[in-house]
Amino acid sequence: MSEDARFGLDKHVRLLGPLPLDSGASLAPMEFAYETYGELNASKTNAILICHALTGDQYVASTHPITGKAGWWERMVGPGKPIDTERHFIICANVLGSCLGSSGPATINPATDEPWGMDFPVLTIADMVRAQAMLLDHLGITKLHAVIGGSMGGMQAVSWTALYPERVNSAVIIASAARHSAQNIAFHEVGRQAIMADPRWRSGAYYADDDPPSSGLAVARMAAHITYLSEAGLTEKFGRRLQDREAKTFGFDADFQVESYLRHQGISFVDRFDANSYLYITRAMDYFDLAEAHGGVLANAFKGSKTRFCLISFDTDWLYPTSESRTMVHALNAAGAEVSFMELSSPFGHDSFLLENPEMNRIVDGFLKAGEV
Amino acid sequence: MSEDARFGLDKHVRLLGPLPLDSGASLAPMEFAYETYGELNASKTNAILICHALTGDQYVASTHPITGKAGWWERMVGPGKPIDTERHFIICANVLGSCLGSSGPATINPATDEPWGMDFPVLTIADMVRAQAMLLDHLGITKLHAVIGGSMGGMQAVSWTALYPERVNSAVIIASAARHSAQNIAFHEVGRQAIMADPRWRSGAYYADDDPPSSGLAVARMAAHITYLSEAGLTEKFGRRLQDREAKTFGFDADFQVESYLRHQGISFVDRFDANSYLYITRAMDYFDLAEAHGGVLANAFKGSKTRFCLISFDTDWLYPTSESRTMVHALNAAGAEVSFMELSSPFGHDSFLLENPEMNRIVDGFLKAGEV
Repeated sequence: MSEDARFGLDKHVRLLGPLPLDSGASLAPMEFAYETYGELNASKTNAILICHALTGDQYVASTHPITGKAGWWERMVGPGKPIDTERHFIICANVLGSCLGSSGPATINPATDEPWGMDFPVLTIADMVRAQAMLLDHLGITKLHAVIGGSMGGMQAVSWTALYPERVNSAVIIASAARHSAQNIAFHEVGRQAIMADPRWRSGAYYADDDPPSSGLAVARMAAHITYLSEAGLTEKFGRRLQDREAKTFGFDADFQVESYLRHQGISFVDRFDANSYLYITRAMDYFDLAEAHGGVLANAFKGSKTRFCLISFDTDWLYPTSESRTMVHALNAAGAEVSFMELSSPFGHDSFLLENPEMNRIVDGFLKAGEV
Repeated sequence: MSEDARFGLDKHVRLLGPLPLDSGASLAPMEFAYETYGELNASKTNAILICHALTGDQYVASTHPITGKAGWWERMVGPGKPIDTERHFIICANVLGSCLGSSGPATINPATDEPWGMDFPVLTIADMVRAQAMLLDHLGITKLHAVIGGSMGGMQAVSWTALYPERVNSAVIIASAARHSAQNIAFHEVGRQAIMADPRWRSGAYYADDDPPSSGLAVARMAAHITYLSEAGLTEKFGRRLQDREAKTFGFDADFQVESYLRHQGISFVDRFDANSYLYITRAMDYFDLAEAHGGVLANAFKGSKTRFCLISFDTDWLYPTSESRTMVHALNAAGAEVSFMELSSPFGHDSFLLENPEMNRIVDGFLKAGEV
């Protein structure tokens, strides 16, 4: 899709800010790396904001500059697809704190002219959303036809509806949750400890000599990756099959396919992601608890909401299981909001939202079209 | 219980072997660290072998020499308890490959007079069991009243019934499985990679300067520990509660109780466990597939078995879920073996077998007594 002249690929903008953060700090200026697909209509009513997941990026429907792989949601975004580049003006920005061009620990701290490292302020999901709102202001978009995201993207989407209810017509929240559970936090903490235990992490100041804590980050990715898949999916895909060998080696090589696969996930991840960004974004997710900011009552986050909600969960997702979506649906019902919810069947666990799933596509397509009438 | 003069605490024996291993190598001599509780009766019919789990040890019902904590199964083992020190002669040996006194990577390789390190041969669960059989030979015990174990201990117990059916009257297999699943292997591989990524691991040769890969081992333990608990248990125990503070710090300290708890699990583990042993024992577990040695048909492992089986699983155990116990029960049924099976309810996930559970105690008590009539 990258040839379409109407698309804004690899866009970059610096906004002066300042952005006041939940921590009390503030950030200024802010770098935004983003992409747009399709054209904003004259009435500016066809804008869709896509929010990406923890290790996602703005390359939703164009080739990733480092991996050379196709956009991560080309199944969902393109001409004639549910998020339709012929019909919608689609924006996706690299999330604040990440490492694909937006401000984050690897970008320059204007106070020191050095990379921020761990001096970068700790962010929340709400901070990310407020930053996105500033970008939309800059783009002249007052109101979104829809905000859409899976996983952490869903946390941003639901936060959009709570922070800017008047700016969001519709919200699609896929494989997500309104707060991070103790188990979610626990897995993230393992990843952070793996990174910080790597001597090359050096309290986050590893940019100068380009010698990042790749071993720690790879271990963090491996642990996280298991949570993205289901037990049944792993069994189906790998079982106990051996990797390129007839028999066990009685050693510590990757005898099993699942070991080889996991090692590959870890090793390839470090080429495209910054360890400090991993720390900051997991922290933002762990801090996420939408009810907390509303007196502990999730329904209060949606009081008087005119936004249309569409929630989707997957039956084998044990990271953000269906029960978490149900909690949101109950709160939305209690708030009198318009909500449709579907649990889809898929063997692939949490990752299902990134994979081919005709039913998911049909639901998103129908929901968006119904909002256009 | 440690004062009972009839008990054999902190016992040690060197057996000449050699022990032929599944890998084709052999091990000689073999060190065994073990404990016994109770007295062997004249007819030698009251011996019970307890097999410990991955990071368990022989201190079943006596104080752990490093941690100072009570024995890990004092709830189950003692006077008047299901495994009754008044009625039974109880043996538990530190498993081969471990680090509490039995031969393992930290013990001396007689060929070099240096610690084995990674020259220690890779073991299987069956190797561990064959070594235990040699220890029982040495103790003059031909036949076991029962072999009992949870988790990896259950893998040893079921292997006992397959390798030495004529030596086992009864087997109690708790929270275990007849093979390691792809997800089981994946979590272990994360732990191994965390250890091996620690620069202090130095290919396992870290004994000389007493500077072990503690950071890597702690991360491995943290990841594993999550799998021992249930999501619901973590939520009940910790939820999103903060640790000794009123508000989030917007930093990377252990703000949440669950983070603090996990870090403590990691840090305290390294004081009592050897990183190389962790590599070897997880490898043995990953290699475990009882059906494999029997033409891929698990029932063949139990053909003609006269052993009485008792299986127990826990409804919130997602590491070795009830379905794994059911697979064993079906195979035992197909083999015409005598088997009772119970799934117990507990909020504590895999760890339930180590915790207070009156129903588990009643089942084991009744099962053992019925076998004595």
